[in-house]
Amino acid sequence: RRIVLLPGDGVGPEVTAAARLVLEEAARRHDVALAFEEHPFGGAAIDAAGDPFPDETRAACLQAEAVFLGAVGGPKWDGAPRRPEAGLLALREALGVFANLRPMRVLPGMETLGPLKPEIARGADILIVRELTGGAYFGRREEGRARARDEIVYAREEVERVARVAFEAARGRRGRVASVDKANVLATSRLWRAAASELHEREYPDVALEHVLVDAMAMKLVLAPASFDVILTENMFGDILSDEASVIAGSIGLSPSASLGGAVGLYEPIHGSAPDIAGQDKANPAGAILSAAMLARFSLGTEHMARDIEQAVEEAIASGARTADLGGTLGCRAFTQAVLERLG
Amino acid sequence: RRIVLLPGDGVGPEVTAAARLVLEEAARRHDVALAFEEHPFGGAAIDAAGDPFPDETRAACLQAEAVFLGAVGGPKWDGAPRRPEAGLLALREALGVFANLRPMRVLPGMETLGPLKPEIARGADILIVRELTGGAYFGRREEGRARARDEIVYAREEVERVARVAFEAARGRRGRVASVDKANVLATSRLWRAAASELHEREYPDVALEHVLVDAMAMKLVLAPASFDVILTENMFGDILSDEASVIAGSIGLSPSASLGGAVGLYEPIHGSAPDIAGQDKANPAGAILSAAMLARFSLGTEHMARDIEQAVEEAIASGARTADLGGTLGCRAFTQAVLERLG
Ligand SMILES: CC(C)[C@H](C(=O)O)[C@@H](O)C(=O)O
Ligand SMILES: CC(C)[C@H](C(=O)O)[C@@H](O)C(=O)O
Repeated sequence: RRIVLLPGDGVGPEVTAAARLVLEEAARRHDVALAFEEHPFGGAAIDAAGDPFPDETRAACLQAEAVFLGAVGGPKWDGAPRRPEAGLLALREALGVFANLRPMRVLPGMETLGPLKPEIARGADILIVRELTGGAYFGRREEGRARARDEIVYAREEVERVARVAFEAARGRRGRVASVDKANVLATSRLWRAAASELHEREYPDVALEHVLVDAMAMKLVLAPASFDVILTENMFGDILSDEASVIAGSIGLSPSASLGGAVGLYEPIHGSAPDIAGQDKANPAGAILSAAMLARFSLGTEHMARDIEQAVEEAIASGARTADLGGTLGCRAFTQAVLERLG
Repeated sequence: RRIVLLPGDGVGPEVTAAARLVLEEAARRHDVALAFEEHPFGGAAIDAAGDPFPDETRAACLQAEAVFLGAVGGPKWDGAPRRPEAGLLALREALGVFANLRPMRVLPGMETLGPLKPEIARGADILIVRELTGGAYFGRREEGRARARDEIVYAREEVERVARVAFEAARGRRGRVASVDKANVLATSRLWRAAASELHEREYPDVALEHVLVDAMAMKLVLAPASFDVILTENMFGDILSDEASVIAGSIGLSPSASLGGAVGLYEPIHGSAPDIAGQDKANPAGAILSAAMLARFSLGTEHMARDIEQAVEEAIASGARTADLGGTLGCRAFTQAVLERLG
């Protein structure tokens, strides 16, 4: 079962190496045969091939069982004609992964790690379902020094298919969806709200649905994170809200993601390339390792292996293993080792 | 000196009444002659006149010294052909108030009021400068059941004039501006970054400027609010980030705003109409009263009167006066009384 690794830029290669080690060890223990291939992507691919998403990388991704991405971007490529991030958007589009799942959980014992008062963080367990291949990320643009333009576009089917993912996920959780929009201003948000509401009425009346304006959600996430179950949101709002939600658990370094909807799943930690600490063994690989667990769950269909990885990470953190972003002293490799020791 | 009051909807009338009482009393003490006029606006104006921003209200606003707005909107008008919020956008546009100032301060003794750990909230003192008459709020729209479209447009001058407000404000504060964008995706953000950078180099080299991606800012605001001075942002990002920032101080009910740039200034608390608690004397009028202080500062030019009002609010809160949103038992009127007693 072929897994394509795209280490990318900055801390990407370090956290990808960590995820690979854990996947390999977990696969060995669970008797799953995996083959890994690395391909150039992002800034690294611009340097090597002049293109953030080279054709050979694209071909490899489309034929893989799953794609794992480290991180892309960095100031080095800010002026590039095609930026690393353009490669990431092209990858998401090529794979057709319209639903980006970003879970955030404050585990017992972890309430004190983040910036919130422990009594507010306690029990937070959110799944953000972010639309990933539409909206302002994929509309037409007009670049310009005097005037610039971006377009936010949504078609009803685009809303419905990602809303379906959120409703289905809610059925397996606490049965509640909060759909985010800015319906008091944006036409796309009014379509979003109508499409989500109608799908809900038609097919998911058993799920509780509420609509929350994006500004109110930015507030409520911090005031009462434990009050949400599944949060459904369009692309740009999801980008902002998922970063905000991620630190509630302590650090963005802990947060994994899975992007689904096409034949091949894409897995990436939600943190960026963090060029300031790249190559120094300082990155937190937990988000990458937990993304590997989601890969095991959704692309390999090996739930037991996914749970095994997740438990190993939880136990490592519970036992006090902490990278610098969580106030600890472990490096990326030592934290990975702590996880490896707790597998199986 | 004529001040137009637009009480609007939900808790709008209550907090407007509070702001008026405080303004009247402060003006009396400072020998400033003020005349107040109330005009219909928002949902209330839809009910009364079929239009959220009637012509006579528009005319009164354009001839006033300053406009004070309570709040607009509510589920009652969700299906209206022209929503209350459309009236608000038309008002901002009519007054040409392109720069929306949203200060957020955690006063000594207030560190424990909000959801953040006191050591993280301590010392936070942020001024958000939000662009208010451009971006997705004012682009062309295509409404539709099958497909919808919004446009984000910015012209270089629109960025420059609001960036200038941020740089000038920074000079009177701690000399630092963090400009927010999503330059790795949006064309308008690349223009935003370039225009802010070039203006900075040309005219404000003494101010420290950094660029922060909007997703990173959503995270950093919660992780380290005290590390920011002035935050400069486009319209939609500013809407989201200012609500997020407001709760760091404890409650969105505390946050005032001033919208400047035209001949007449517009002042409004940043909270919404809160229909669930409307008419129950439960709203926190502090944001409205502090908006009245900004009105005294920017439209009346009476800094001493502005400081007097701000100090009265700070002392009331320091002495334990708390509305329900801050865990207290005072009603809107009793809190206003506590402020009135501390004036002058
Ligand atoms: C790198 C960037 C284009 C990307 C995004 O905005 O989607 C990132 O922030 C993310 O959230 O995955
Ligand atoms: C009511 C709404 C249109 C408005 C906005 O989005 O600007 C409000 O949220 C605000 O922040 O003043």
